[in-house]
Amino acid sequence: MDQVMQRLRQFRDDRDWKQFHNPKDLAVALSIEAGELLEAFLWKAPEAANPEKVKEELADVLAYALLLSDAYGFDVQKIVLEKIERNEAKYPIDKARGSAKKYTEL
Amino acid sequence: MDQVMQRLRQFRDDRDWKQFHNPKDLAVALSIEAGELLEAFLWKAPEAANPEKVKEELADVLAYALLLSDAYGFDVQKIVLEKIERNEAKYPIDKARGSAKKYTEL
Amino acid sequence: MDQVMQRLRQFRDDRDWKQFHNPKDLAVALSIEAGELLEAFLWKAPEAANPEKVKEELADVLAYALLLSDAYGFDVQKIVLEKIERNEAKYPIDKARGSAKKYTEL
Amino acid sequence: MDQVMQRLRQFRDDRDWKQFHNPKDLAVALSIEAGELLEAFLWKAPEAANPEKVKEELADVLAYALLLSDAYGFDVQKIVLEKIERNEAKYPIDKARGSAKKYTEL
Repeated sequence: MDQVMQRLRQFRDDRDWKQFHNPKDLAVALSIEAGELLEAFLWKAPEAANPEKVKEELADVLAYALLLSDAYGFDVQKIVLEKIERNEAKYPIDKARGSAKKYTEL
Repeated sequence: MDQVMQRLRQFRDDRDWKQFHNPKDLAVALSIEAGELLEAFLWKAPEAANPEKVKEELADVLAYALLLSDAYGFDVQKIVLEKIERNEAKYPIDKARGSAKKYTEL
Repeated sequence: MDQVMQRLRQFRDDRDWKQFHNPKDLAVALSIEAGELLEAFLWKAPEAANPEKVKEELADVLAYALLLSDAYGFDVQKIVLEKIERNEAKYPIDKARGSAKKYTEL
Repeated sequence: MDQVMQRLRQFRDDRDWKQFHNPKDLAVALSIEAGELLEAFLWKAPEAANPEKVKEELADVLAYALLLSDAYGFDVQKIVLEKIERNEAKYPIDKARGSAKKYTEL
């Protein structure tokens, strides 16, 4: 992921865009892209999105997620692994198995 | 990233959750988490979010982005690099430098 | 609001779109439009959005909110008034005055 | 709708919250609530959300949409009617009938 992060930083710095990339606007941008990703699925059966559209919008979501992580100095792999550990405690296998309920309702 | 992907799949399969994880619901889940991430910034100055809250919500966004990529067999690093290339064409340095305008308005 | 609701229903039925307007997709559509609304504010100072863009996207958000209310038979004015009452209990004036904290943190 | 708007303003002013309610944060708040609304539908069939949860979250979306309209001096009924007119031009009945395609693809 380091190479990708490096390319994202260079793309941003070549355009002098760091001045716009405060954490709040990066989170807003990520949310906008999450909406564009949703658009690939709108009015459609769960598996019927155009994969090319999904790929493009998902790449945008990931790019902003990486830039936001970078703004805080997070290691993306580490924070996801930590979250999985926390979720293992919130969703014990014997209670959560086969259930789509939120942990607060298990 | 392969190790993280492996842990996400195992977490899901230990709980028999693949049945819920169709692409549309994964995109919906990602969008919900993007909203929770935004909440860390609400009514606050651009840099004033609680980093721990940002870390947790960003990890959730990343987890769903990875699961959705996996559902389509995408390589996350590859799709982000491809998108950067496409954006290099949409935002030529000489036109985009120092400007926050969308490519359609450059 | 009844006249607006009537026009929305007619617009939909003239195009035979009720078949697509299940509650889940209406909520997805609303969320997409909320993202497009956010786009009017991206990389900008809090008051610097283009009001015409805000007006258009806000109208889309409202249209889907009204259609979703209608799908459940809700009276939009009544549900907002009820929510204000619930919020008056969650945010007592003496505790909430001048504070942007969430009720769970007051 | 005027009575609802009046109650929303009073709720806000009793708590001295106008200082937080700049247009950008109101749009962010609306987007967060749109995400909470989506949560009522997550991992579920299109009609299987809990109507009480939908009602509450939809009321929050509407409340922020009204406050944002008010910040710009928009008349909510007028802007929705205007948008319907614009959509009538973008989606002519003979082309759009029975189709879920976006106007750019019709």
